[in-house]
Amino acid sequence: MRQILLFFSILFSSFVSPMSATAADPKTDSTSQWAIVLHGGAGAPPADATAKQLQVRRDGLSAALTAGRNVLATGGSSLDAVEATIRVLEDNSLFNAGHGAVFNSAGEHELDASIMDGRTLAGGGVAGVRTVRNPITLARRVMTETPHVLLSGPGAETFATEQNVDRVPNDAFSTEQRRAEWEKVKAKETAENARRDQPARPWQIGTVGCVALDAAGNIAAGTSTGGRTNKKYGRVGDSPIIGAGTYADNATCGISASGVGEQFIRHAAAAQISLLMQHREWSLQQAADYVLKERLRPGDGGIIGLDRSGKVVWVFTTPGMYRGAADSSGRFDIRIGNE
Amino acid sequence: MRQILLFFSILFSSFVSPMSATAADPKTDSTSQWAIVLHGGAGAPPADATAKQLQVRRDGLSAALTAGRNVLATGGSSLDAVEATIRVLEDNSLFNAGHGAVFNSAGEHELDASIMDGRTLAGGGVAGVRTVRNPITLARRVMTETPHVLLSGPGAETFATEQNVDRVPNDAFSTEQRRAEWEKVKAKETAENARRDQPARPWQIGTVGCVALDAAGNIAAGTSTGGRTNKKYGRVGDSPIIGAGTYADNATCGISASGVGEQFIRHAAAAQISLLMQHREWSLQQAADYVLKERLRPGDGGIIGLDRSGKVVWVFTTPGMYRGAADSSGRFDIRIGNE
Repeated sequence: MRQILLFFSILFSSFVSPMSATAADPKTDSTSQWAIVLHGGAGAPPADATAKQLQVRRDGLSAALTAGRNVLATGGSSLDAVEATIRVLEDNSLFNAGHGAVFNSAGEHELDASIMDGRTLAGGGVAGVRTVRNPITLARRVMTETPHVLLSGPGAETFATEQNVDRVPNDAFSTEQRRAEWEKVKAKETAENARRDQPARPWQIGTVGCVALDAAGNIAAGTSTGGRTNKKYGRVGDSPIIGAGTYADNATCGISASGVGEQFIRHAAAAQISLLMQHREWSLQQAADYVLKERLRPGDGGIIGLDRSGKVVWVFTTPGMYRGAADSSGRFDIRIGNE
Repeated sequence: MRQILLFFSILFSSFVSPMSATAADPKTDSTSQWAIVLHGGAGAPPADATAKQLQVRRDGLSAALTAGRNVLATGGSSLDAVEATIRVLEDNSLFNAGHGAVFNSAGEHELDASIMDGRTLAGGGVAGVRTVRNPITLARRVMTETPHVLLSGPGAETFATEQNVDRVPNDAFSTEQRRAEWEKVKAKETAENARRDQPARPWQIGTVGCVALDAAGNIAAGTSTGGRTNKKYGRVGDSPIIGAGTYADNATCGISASGVGEQFIRHAAAAQISLLMQHREWSLQQAADYVLKERLRPGDGGIIGLDRSGKVVWVFTTPGMYRGAADSSGRFDIRIGNE
């Protein structure tokens, strides 16, 4: 059904306005508002990035945003929009999620993802999956098909088999660009020979995420990543952890984070933003500014989010963040730098 | 050094008062206050438990509390006290952590633990370890010896090898009692044949945890568990996740949780209690009551905690919680039921 809806929405998205599309769905009416925001990682492009390289990344974000927008514009749910958006980013080799994920210390890929439903506070996450083409889809199955919130490693692979989600060989996630980055990081870390002294930054750019508000007023959020280049020991970052890298609560906001995952875990960063809105009656902007700028360290990363009115916020303490937003008023906005 | 200190403190603990012991340490003075609280799981003993069975559990809690108290009374750190206390509980076959951990669906044991330093907000956790005798010790090494917060599965085992921590065969964690519980749960779940319909409760009692405040004013918290009986798919609960099952911040409190882990993750429960103290200026009692009774569901579990003044709090929505507390005023208190 989702696929049919997506096909339909993609077919018509270029010439049907959002308003007329939502009007066609019985769940929505002409006053229904929806909004969507996505990211492709906190950080900045290399100083020597060409205009063409930047344009390819903008195009990647734009394609993903279009997928999610089309779900919402045709009356689809925020969960469907988040999953559709992140699947496009996972399949795009430019981002550190799914195809194009970074290499771990064994020269392989271990993928993490999570998704949360702001209506019910249900959430699902997977950590360290190796053959699941779209980890965000498996995370959603954890949420809906198990009583659990987080599955990891071989157990999560077993669950993927039972759920019959798309599988690929681990090396299908590999790209030459990521391999080159890994070789560079490996050489550097061996030379430094210091696990403790290795700075948390710079991380490898490209974790992806999406937050959506649908016409029914439901917020959903999701995040997907390959983690950190050359990661060891089954390291789990914030992306698969509800409360750290992903959070959604219809009463407050939805959040997806990118950056130094350990910092987002220590501060329960995504949940903290929601709690500050609830308990201090701060705006999403105030709460996100506080957590990113007062609690985390400069350069730790960034978040995207939206509140229950559909107001989109992005806050990052990195030089840039690959991001974009669209809404029912016709906004369609892609950005990279600190503009 | 820690072992020598422990030996010394155990030797003298029965006839040296806490105050004279702390006075012997240059880090402390006669006004120094310390406190410690531990738990052996939220829940109640079986209705047919004998007085002798209950006494054995009280004795187990008492031995662990003594270990932690002795660290604090001799001027040791809250991190050392938490680790020492939880190691005793892990080694005790009565509790669902280390030896005596529940069986997973494969008839084996997968252990989770975490620890947090309230002075620095550093934290460490391990999920799904299989041969580490004391997971709490490995969690502490994650905190101090890596830039990461959470390691999982085979990667965490590799890290254990590098750190040279005590190892045992997986079946060394087995007890006949836990095997019998597993057989019973398996039969029931197969009969019901319904992953979704299986109630989150009753869980298997016995997750352990400890929170301590040392004479220097530093709070630490830790949690260790075997998870849920018959768990599948590499399920990760709240115990290894900083913010969910464990939290410590010198500015507010320390927390260790036990219960339906998924609920504690969804609500970032341990971190939420700390944040409510910080941002609403609630007492630990108020914050813990709110999270356990207003946010979580009745029966979801319980928490132990203490605030920066050393005030101990336990809140649970189960019929009981295995728990105890001691402090520099001479308190030494073990409880099980709702007294």
